[in-house]
Amino acid sequence: MVEKLPTQPYKGSRDFYPPEMRERGWMFSVLEKTVESFGYEKIDAPVIEPIDIYLAKTSEEIVSRQIYSFEDRGGRKVCIRPEMTPTVSRMVSAKIRELPRPIRWYSLPNLWRYEKPGKGRLREHWQLNADLFGASDEFMADVEILQLAMDILIAFKADPGTFNLFLNHRNLLNDVFEKLLKIPREKWPSAARILDKKEKISKDEYEKMLNEAGLTNDQTKIINEYIDNGLNFLKENKSKLSSEYTEYLFKLISFLTDLGYGDYVRYNPSVIRGFDYYTGMVFEIFDEHPENRRSLYGGGRYDNLISAFSKESLNAVGFGMGDVTLYEFLSTHKLIPGILPKTQIYVASFLEEECKKEAFVISAKLRKEGYLVETSLGQTKLGKQFQEADTKKIPIVIIQGLEEKKENKITVKDMKSGEQNIIDEKEILNYLEKYFN
Amino acid sequence: MVEKLPTQPYKGSRDFYPPEMRERGWMFSVLEKTVESFGYEKIDAPVIEPIDIYLAKTSEEIVSRQIYSFEDRGGRKVCIRPEMTPTVSRMVSAKIRELPRPIRWYSLPNLWRYEKPGKGRLREHWQLNADLFGASDEFMADVEILQLAMDILIAFKADPGTFNLFLNHRNLLNDVFEKLLKIPREKWPSAARILDKKEKISKDEYEKMLNEAGLTNDQTKIINEYIDNGLNFLKENKSKLSSEYTEYLFKLISFLTDLGYGDYVRYNPSVIRGFDYYTGMVFEIFDEHPENRRSLYGGGRYDNLISAFSKESLNAVGFGMGDVTLYEFLSTHKLIPGILPKTQIYVASFLEEECKKEAFVISAKLRKEGYLVETSLGQTKLGKQFQEADTKKIPIVIIQGLEEKKENKITVKDMKSGEQNIIDEKEILNYLEKYFN
Repeated sequence: MVEKLPTQPYKGSRDFYPPEMRERGWMFSVLEKTVESFGYEKIDAPVIEPIDIYLAKTSEEIVSRQIYSFEDRGGRKVCIRPEMTPTVSRMVSAKIRELPRPIRWYSLPNLWRYEKPGKGRLREHWQLNADLFGASDEFMADVEILQLAMDILIAFKADPGTFNLFLNHRNLLNDVFEKLLKIPREKWPSAARILDKKEKISKDEYEKMLNEAGLTNDQTKIINEYIDNGLNFLKENKSKLSSEYTEYLFKLISFLTDLGYGDYVRYNPSVIRGFDYYTGMVFEIFDEHPENRRSLYGGGRYDNLISAFSKESLNAVGFGMGDVTLYEFLSTHKLIPGILPKTQIYVASFLEEECKKEAFVISAKLRKEGYLVETSLGQTKLGKQFQEADTKKIPIVIIQGLEEKKENKITVKDMKSGEQNIIDEKEILNYLEKYFN
Repeated sequence: MVEKLPTQPYKGSRDFYPPEMRERGWMFSVLEKTVESFGYEKIDAPVIEPIDIYLAKTSEEIVSRQIYSFEDRGGRKVCIRPEMTPTVSRMVSAKIRELPRPIRWYSLPNLWRYEKPGKGRLREHWQLNADLFGASDEFMADVEILQLAMDILIAFKADPGTFNLFLNHRNLLNDVFEKLLKIPREKWPSAARILDKKEKISKDEYEKMLNEAGLTNDQTKIINEYIDNGLNFLKENKSKLSSEYTEYLFKLISFLTDLGYGDYVRYNPSVIRGFDYYTGMVFEIFDEHPENRRSLYGGGRYDNLISAFSKESLNAVGFGMGDVTLYEFLSTHKLIPGILPKTQIYVASFLEEECKKEAFVISAKLRKEGYLVETSLGQTKLGKQFQEADTKKIPIVIIQGLEEKKENKITVKDMKSGEQNIIDEKEILNYLEKYFN
């Protein structure tokens, strides 16, 4: 016997059968509606990109260990995109002079990383990317992106308290390093990386790492005060820091509070973001469920990425939100509704050749009226056809026998109530309109 | 100076900027609505598949020369899917006992082939796949798939005469080879391949190839009669052929004619289809535009593919339709409407801090009512903001100055008529509802 091929999808990726696809479709449509309500327009790009566009700014871990790269048959070094921001930056740069500004774009690409699959982590995932380029006022652009990031979870009916938005500013951290800790500039990246890890490691480990990075006990003490007291620490040390960044942060929080987001927005000095390209405001949205406390998604300002592709520069702010973590958030907080298949009408048929043809004719008429209609392919007993409609949760079954046809009658069954009626053929559209509207 | 990265997409693939994305979105939504009106449910699968699933049935040319294959970091031989049917068959096989039948599925995957890019041929394209598995009556399933394939172009408002459906049956061809030509079975595939190429090569070349394949002049003469006279040839030679296949074909044409597709359906003996997996009815939809006569898409019955994955068997019929050729058809026949951006309202703002905030508040209120609203990010003069709305074709601009706010008034401008009004703040929703409904 010939051996059969395995039927599971490639490791760390998913098949979407109709029930999963309906949930994904629902999730994506809430995302699309929300970003479109802010005037963002959809874009897309090829799933294969030259690897060069990731070498500049994407984290080394991704490029050297997680990227799906290969040589094409023409010897080009290409990869399957691990993130969307370099692609979006490439596209903006290609038409930087002709695109009307500000540029508000979103996309919903699938991305690939060679990871060990686990909870919330797969090799293929989809990601909402929303980006705002070339704003005349960067502060207002930051406000809009933060508002949009929160409005998405609110659109999914997430209550206050289920999530928080943790805010930070890259230059503020650098300022603390420089003005308060007096750490030499070359040590900033490694110190930042340790802070970024703080939530994931033990206190001992964390302090040991700071120590190994060359920080004195006094410096570690100040850093800890900063991390623990956040906003208050900044206010107390305001005079020693650049007012530009502290004022920016205070104003951002106050503006968002005035717009009604006070319940969600928190300053959090340990929000760093792994990527090397952020240049200003950074944020992360945190799930506050006691069993699921973790970062859901985030983003920030990345004004320098365009310059990898273009001599011109353009300010940029945006975020990316993965479908796997979003799904887990919605599922943990019980925010996923049951989504039924769309098909509305099942047209059954008796076994006679003439009836089967008539079922196709009736179905075609109903489709012309805009109904979603499954037609029986005949050859099975009527009971089995009704059962088929029932299994597929189709609410209405219609059937017309040869005798009925002669008398211009038709049988309609409401599958929920079980009620079955023989009505005049010309009444059928009224019946359906009443039922579905 | 650091060299800038190139901004064009990977060879043979496309970036979709908002205007192209709007057209694609429109095209896909017509496709989805049409297949869903027949009760087909959407599925999706990973873009990476193990290469094994293509080795069995996909044409050798694709696997050896066109597939994007590579080894992953774990040494697995994988590829980017070049077609969707093996994936769909894999998914059906994985749940073959639990899926309610008949299974009506569709998908809209992107597919990759390493081809020399040209007219209608790119390395990445999207493809509508519609498949019907496990029908109780295969004839009715064939009818439905053919009807659906034609209804798609009809949904795009293609007139009769702009396209034809060319029909054939695999066994009929084999029957002609066996009963009329008496060609040994091992020569059938090569003879079929030559017939498949007939439309693309010269008559001399074609006859030379048949000759080289070992066909005598008499055999070539009969084949030519068959190709030239199609249905009449079959009727004349009916007694010498298996009635099973001729009857099936005659009945199929008559059934489709009764359903109103007589203007489109033609028997065409040279429709063979390149793939090795078709087992019964095959078809191709042809563009009949004098400057663009060629196959747009096609499909057929492929009952054996499931058996590569499962001990159970399941009948199957379906087709695939690429977005590039579809777009060219629609464009040649002038069937693509202008599709405007979706954003409905532009909320402008004066330069005062308080006004900018108010613009955000007004925008949030309008979004709650379901409107798609772009908010000015301020910092530019009013004239420039109106210009921004105009460039983006946003039909309504709203603005509220500080004086107006005190008096509960607001300014609304209809960008098409140029009419500008100051109205009561509480009238704004009425105004918008009247405008947009």
